[in-house]
Amino acid sequence: MTVQAWLNGEPIVDPEHALALTNRGLHYGDGVFETMHLFDGQIRFLDAHVERATEGCARLGMALSTARLLQELTCLPLQTQPSIVKLVLVRSGAGRGYRPAPNSEAMRLVLLYPWTEASPTVRAQWCAARWSRNSQLAGLKHLNRLEQVLAQQELRDGVDEGLMLDTEGEVVSATSGNVFLVRQGKLCTPDLRLCGVNGVMRRQVLGAAKATGLSVEECALWPADFEHAEEAFITNALRGIRPIVQLDEQRWPIGPMAQQLRRTLTL
Amino acid sequence: MTVQAWLNGEPIVDPEHALALTNRGLHYGDGVFETMHLFDGQIRFLDAHVERATEGCARLGMALSTARLLQELTCLPLQTQPSIVKLVLVRSGAGRGYRPAPNSEAMRLVLLYPWTEASPTVRAQWCAARWSRNSQLAGLKHLNRLEQVLAQQELRDGVDEGLMLDTEGEVVSATSGNVFLVRQGKLCTPDLRLCGVNGVMRRQVLGAAKATGLSVEECALWPADFEHAEEAFITNALRGIRPIVQLDEQRWPIGPMAQQLRRTLTL
Repeated sequence: MTVQAWLNGEPIVDPEHALALTNRGLHYGDGVFETMHLFDGQIRFLDAHVERATEGCARLGMALSTARLLQELTCLPLQTQPSIVKLVLVRSGAGRGYRPAPNSEAMRLVLLYPWTEASPTVRAQWCAARWSRNSQLAGLKHLNRLEQVLAQQELRDGVDEGLMLDTEGEVVSATSGNVFLVRQGKLCTPDLRLCGVNGVMRRQVLGAAKATGLSVEECALWPADFEHAEEAFITNALRGIRPIVQLDEQRWPIGPMAQQLRRTLTL
Repeated sequence: MTVQAWLNGEPIVDPEHALALTNRGLHYGDGVFETMHLFDGQIRFLDAHVERATEGCARLGMALSTARLLQELTCLPLQTQPSIVKLVLVRSGAGRGYRPAPNSEAMRLVLLYPWTEASPTVRAQWCAARWSRNSQLAGLKHLNRLEQVLAQQELRDGVDEGLMLDTEGEVVSATSGNVFLVRQGKLCTPDLRLCGVNGVMRRQVLGAAKATGLSVEECALWPADFEHAEEAFITNALRGIRPIVQLDEQRWPIGPMAQQLRRTLTL
């Protein structure tokens, strides 16, 4: 795969041999990441991504200069063809043992991948792999992602995405995105109080829905709520809003609320 | 820090620039690890470590040649002074997205660190950071270790270790080891059915206790159980058995059962 990379703002000549074996990302997943859409030479929703990354570092007790990060991201020689920009913030310092040095800073790694197309609608399945609950980590886009790796290994042929429950059976999200449903005309999405990633596109959708006077609720959802839903869709920063047209045996047409929100957000 | 390293059996010349930026250990913590004690030119409990690593790879759906791993570990030019050998098994293959290529193999990374001394007894505290519950990951020594990183950041000056509960308040372990207590002459340790690492030294202790006719129970333990314990100790493969002599305000002398088990296991 062709990938271009920068570390703390400096271009990396050989991405295949770049990282220290002792880095805390590898050993503990000690960091956070953002996956961003580069379109027309601009990173879409850049401020929201940087805001979430900043919040994530603060919650992990990792120092980050937001101003320097923003400067590095805006100074990248970004091409005009659509791309995927992955930002990985890993706590610097090696050492053995879980305990980081006090005030250790985030190492800023930027990876630029070529854009890949994805279907604008989603055929989904329920996954057996679960999100574990931990309010201290809930909402964070951190690097501990084994649960999503296990869930994606389950996906059957012909299926694009998996929906995941937490260990108590509440619906949390798709493996790579947040999930919304429409119930009696009302937009609902899991509240993420105990697990899940607080997605940048999720925030955009909630904001746009409220701004256009839609009725919105962040709440506990269960698989049975999907049986009675009028429509359902998945959101993430790369793919925007993608209607679920199939969930195991259930089928939906592309719903009007997903279409309206896509127009509002010009996705 | 002086560290020697091998990747898939080959020595690594420059550990500071060795790892691909796209490796799945960094991005997802997609792998498992072992921390081993090299003593007198031998890795102690090697078979138990390799057995657990093999089981971990199987549970994550990652291919591993156990024979090749064993061969690589036994062929390392291992010095005679005590050292710490860290084995990291990361799913190979990069790519974007959580889903691994089918049948991807484990990349075998071995790091050799100089030995560091640690106190033979432990002053401990309760940590606020919790283990999350997920039976699919319970027992595994996987690379998703943010909860332990958060817990160790809490440790106060003069404290060696932290004891951690799960999100429901059950006692699970120390941040870097398993925990045992003695209650009315009976040895008890958390059952790890929902979280925690199934430690190599924990297994040795349970085996030795059963072999010498001690009464042993793997069960649910709560913080209150420590208030009434006659003794408590922490185990891991590097440090063996370490009596807890202080837990916040509570104090214990070094207990007879810890001493007996140390003698039995020749630690």
